[in-house]
Amino acid sequence: MNLAGIFAPIPTPFDDRDRVDTGRLKAALAKWVKRPLTGFVVLGSNGEAALMDDFESDQAIVAARETIPHDMGFIVGTGRESTQAAIKASKRAAEHGADAVLVRTPGFFKSQMTNDVFVRHYTAVADASPVPVLLYNFTAVTGVNLLPAAVARLATHPNIIGMKESGGDVAQVADLVSQTPDDFTVLAGAAATLYPMMCVGAAGGILALAGALPAPCMHLFELTVSGRHEEAIALQRQLVPVARLLGATHGVPGLKAALNLLGYDVGVPRPPLLPLPESIIPALREALAQFEEIPA
Amino acid sequence: MNLAGIFAPIPTPFDDRDRVDTGRLKAALAKWVKRPLTGFVVLGSNGEAALMDDFESDQAIVAARETIPHDMGFIVGTGRESTQAAIKASKRAAEHGADAVLVRTPGFFKSQMTNDVFVRHYTAVADASPVPVLLYNFTAVTGVNLLPAAVARLATHPNIIGMKESGGDVAQVADLVSQTPDDFTVLAGAAATLYPMMCVGAAGGILALAGALPAPCMHLFELTVSGRHEEAIALQRQLVPVARLLGATHGVPGLKAALNLLGYDVGVPRPPLLPLPESIIPALREALAQFEEIPA
Amino acid sequence: MNLAGIFAPIPTPFDDRDRVDTGRLKAALAKWVKRPLTGFVVLGSNGEAALMDDFESDQAIVAARETIPHDMGFIVGTGRESTQAAIKASKRAAEHGADAVLVRTPGFFKSQMTNDVFVRHYTAVADASPVPVLLYNFTAVTGVNLLPAAVARLATHPNIIGMKESGGDVAQVADLVSQTPDDFTVLAGAAATLYPMMCVGAAGGILALAGALPAPCMHLFELTVSGRHEEAIALQRQLVPVARLLGATHGVPGLKAALNLLGYDVGVPRPPLLPLPESIIPALREALAQFEEIPA
Amino acid sequence: MNLAGIFAPIPTPFDDRDRVDTGRLKAALAKWVKRPLTGFVVLGSNGEAALMDDFESDQAIVAARETIPHDMGFIVGTGRESTQAAIKASKRAAEHGADAVLVRTPGFFKSQMTNDVFVRHYTAVADASPVPVLLYNFTAVTGVNLLPAAVARLATHPNIIGMKESGGDVAQVADLVSQTPDDFTVLAGAAATLYPMMCVGAAGGILALAGALPAPCMHLFELTVSGRHEEAIALQRQLVPVARLLGATHGVPGLKAALNLLGYDVGVPRPPLLPLPESIIPALREALAQFEEIPA
Repeated sequence: MNLAGIFAPIPTPFDDRDRVDTGRLKAALAKWVKRPLTGFVVLGSNGEAALMDDFESDQAIVAARETIPHDMGFIVGTGRESTQAAIKASKRAAEHGADAVLVRTPGFFKSQMTNDVFVRHYTAVADASPVPVLLYNFTAVTGVNLLPAAVARLATHPNIIGMKESGGDVAQVADLVSQTPDDFTVLAGAAATLYPMMCVGAAGGILALAGALPAPCMHLFELTVSGRHEEAIALQRQLVPVARLLGATHGVPGLKAALNLLGYDVGVPRPPLLPLPESIIPALREALAQFEEIPA
Repeated sequence: MNLAGIFAPIPTPFDDRDRVDTGRLKAALAKWVKRPLTGFVVLGSNGEAALMDDFESDQAIVAARETIPHDMGFIVGTGRESTQAAIKASKRAAEHGADAVLVRTPGFFKSQMTNDVFVRHYTAVADASPVPVLLYNFTAVTGVNLLPAAVARLATHPNIIGMKESGGDVAQVADLVSQTPDDFTVLAGAAATLYPMMCVGAAGGILALAGALPAPCMHLFELTVSGRHEEAIALQRQLVPVARLLGATHGVPGLKAALNLLGYDVGVPRPPLLPLPESIIPALREALAQFEEIPA
Repeated sequence: MNLAGIFAPIPTPFDDRDRVDTGRLKAALAKWVKRPLTGFVVLGSNGEAALMDDFESDQAIVAARETIPHDMGFIVGTGRESTQAAIKASKRAAEHGADAVLVRTPGFFKSQMTNDVFVRHYTAVADASPVPVLLYNFTAVTGVNLLPAAVARLATHPNIIGMKESGGDVAQVADLVSQTPDDFTVLAGAAATLYPMMCVGAAGGILALAGALPAPCMHLFELTVSGRHEEAIALQRQLVPVARLLGATHGVPGLKAALNLLGYDVGVPRPPLLPLPESIIPALREALAQFEEIPA
Repeated sequence: MNLAGIFAPIPTPFDDRDRVDTGRLKAALAKWVKRPLTGFVVLGSNGEAALMDDFESDQAIVAARETIPHDMGFIVGTGRESTQAAIKASKRAAEHGADAVLVRTPGFFKSQMTNDVFVRHYTAVADASPVPVLLYNFTAVTGVNLLPAAVARLATHPNIIGMKESGGDVAQVADLVSQTPDDFTVLAGAAATLYPMMCVGAAGGILALAGALPAPCMHLFELTVSGRHEEAIALQRQLVPVARLLGATHGVPGLKAALNLLGYDVGVPRPPLLPLPESIIPALREALAQFEEIPA
């Protein structure tokens, strides 16, 4: 499986009774599959997977698999707090057609999450998963840090093929790349830092912005891999403000609002998340309009 | 429902195939119900609820309800990341006989967890729950802080009767007490701070140590409420080292090891948690032996 | 030297050309020495010592010594980042008449501040200081934590007589008390937690609030030591809101504004600190007026 | 003044009686001035300025000025907690011949350090300083963050010419660049991230590693500015491990040990800092030997 490229983490639409809306999910994906993207992550952090139960998760996976063509990547988020649950979720995702699973670190019992605990957890998941495993470190959300020393031990497992690192610390990504084999793929987690992360060895990214603005994200990726660095640098700088708006600043509410503006009907976040305040919409529209035409 | 007193948060035993072991749960509870305790919390943080699915949770609730007499309190942890899931879990707990539910704050989308979000979340849960609701703030685990300003708004809801505050900041507990009505009950979350927390207005505690050492914990509570402060202070100081061992220092692995030493057969933690290293056992045994006879 | 009691940390007045104003310092101290206080801390955190140079520090010490009678305690803050500078400042303070020095941990090179570093630093200061040394931990400001394990090693030094712990974690104070000899004195750092801290073994406090409201602070201390716990608890609860206003919420600007309202002419904070916004003054006045008459 | 390039932050040697050793400082600088470097920073964080008094600071500035030729940049660190002291230090540095001053944010009163406070502080310093001012944000040390919003307001001041950002968050640097005028220079603070920081707009760096390995650092800078990105990326990856050793991992003790190995006689850190443990020296030697010949 080739992970080098740009993946869009797909949000999960809910209907007006707060149920997973597979119809809207498929309709939105039908648009996305025509855009320049390497593949998709379903049930990632931006997919509000933390707010969904196992049945709902299966619904979303099945609906996505029906819509995503087999020449595009289809990764499913299956991180859980217990090793057993992460294994079960990974098996279900594989059964429903996932190409790989993206397994966020457990983090509830923070003070117990040592390197040894992470190595045991991921080894068990990778041993059991029918499809390849991607590690996933997202310290801002989990409060724990999957350190390069632990990743180095896991990267030699034959069923662990790579990692998503969502932190902004480019030195930690540099460390990850330098301490893992060449066929271990590190993916960045934020469009605001895609280019610098690729410069230190990341092979691409799983980027919230890629759902909203696939073409500029893919263009940035391609400029970088083809060595057109000056253009890449210029485009990276252009993308920073809008990437920040949809990422760190407004989170899922910002991403869903942006997608709705762009014609992907993905509804509102699930409670307790509140929708983006109306007062932010004009700034969001303006930021997006520099890259894509906003439907009236 | 009278919350003033000492509640033991019950760990969940797993069998050697990592399944919930309701037989051992009932056997351990049959011992606990004879001890001087006000009641029990099932599926709290120490119950490893974060590592269990909904079916397993129901198993534990049903088994506990069968064993706990109706003159002792029976509180069930039902915190979930989504409002909908917290409501469903609270309804199931009530259906299975819980006297009240203890609802930990959501915390996954940290930067979105404003006072307004918490108020909306808890109001929806309290509106829907058939049994009274206790708020639950555990910043060290969730990474978010349910501030006195939000609690003050929630404390007037007729179905929200109190709160567990697990933080060590006695000033925050003092603020909580001063900003909520007299019939809103604040419970402390750590035996190492029970006496000072009660001094600033807490009505008791939900204490990991109370499962291991019920009598000294209840004695400390009774000394405090009956105004025998000098004795309370002396006992509090004696309890600090063992309370720290089972709480902040070794977490669930420490608690389960202590209970096994004391004759409550609760097994090992669920992976990814590792059992307490053997090297720690002698110190643990010695600390406990100052208060309870350790079975041979 | 008897440290059991209530010490007021004295702010440093600056004149309208931003110079240390020893005249106003002496005038304010002349009022304070008539109030029920055990003693004073000059050049503490609330004294804006971090914003003053060595010459200005000497000016403040000399002025204070001239005004404070010898039957009240006179402690001088002499924490510095280098061991050598902390020694020099402690010697100067002793020469100018300090009864003891209060030495805040260094904290600039955070990742290097191990237990061993702290033990070496404080041992060198205590070996050289002509007057007794108090350790001082203020994690919220320094970003480092002087842990009970390090304090336990230092508490046996004949010239280290105690410690100020400014954190709100009552369990850490309980640990400190349980791991140090009986003649090692722990002082609390916040009026909002004085009573609970004394319950776990603190002998008193160095309290910003004690400068503004000496009588209620001393009354709380006396109620506690004489075992009148119910009254102490009631008074503690009354003091929490005003203690928070002058402490964590508004810091030095809040303290100086409160003192000016109460007739101690201490001026405005030194830049870069800004004065308390005018909009906060009415709430501050109201909070203080419950305990002391506010001059017109 | 042209800031684009590579600056070495110079450590301060102390003699065996813990006094500033200007002889050794000049001898070491005499070697450095022959190396490929744009200039020097004296009295930066790595210069242990936080451990030195004003007289010692003047000694170091004068000695450096005598040794550094006028065609190389000579920047002096003059950050202080008070505005007044930062102004005085900046004036002294200018008087002794500094080309520019590097002013670290105050950070003692963390909760008071708002954007407005920073703007007022730096505006006052820049108004008064006879030489141009560089802002300096080092959150890991100060615990406060000088945000792009505040920098954007300051960047238009005619005497504020740039900034050193020592954080690893490449997105924050991207924000800084996008929100400041083109003639405002952002310098990176860590060799481990020089290339990616330059890719998002940094003009160079003030790098601890540049004192130890000037040639590879300057080569990386030149590869980047001349658009030889593939070579730059390869060199950046090579430099990451040694950059981490001298920076985040071992701090000043690591830097001084490395420089001593390389023939710059800079002695040991000032207490309370401890020298690098002997056990680390072989790994340090090996890491350095990949780039420079280590004298026997």
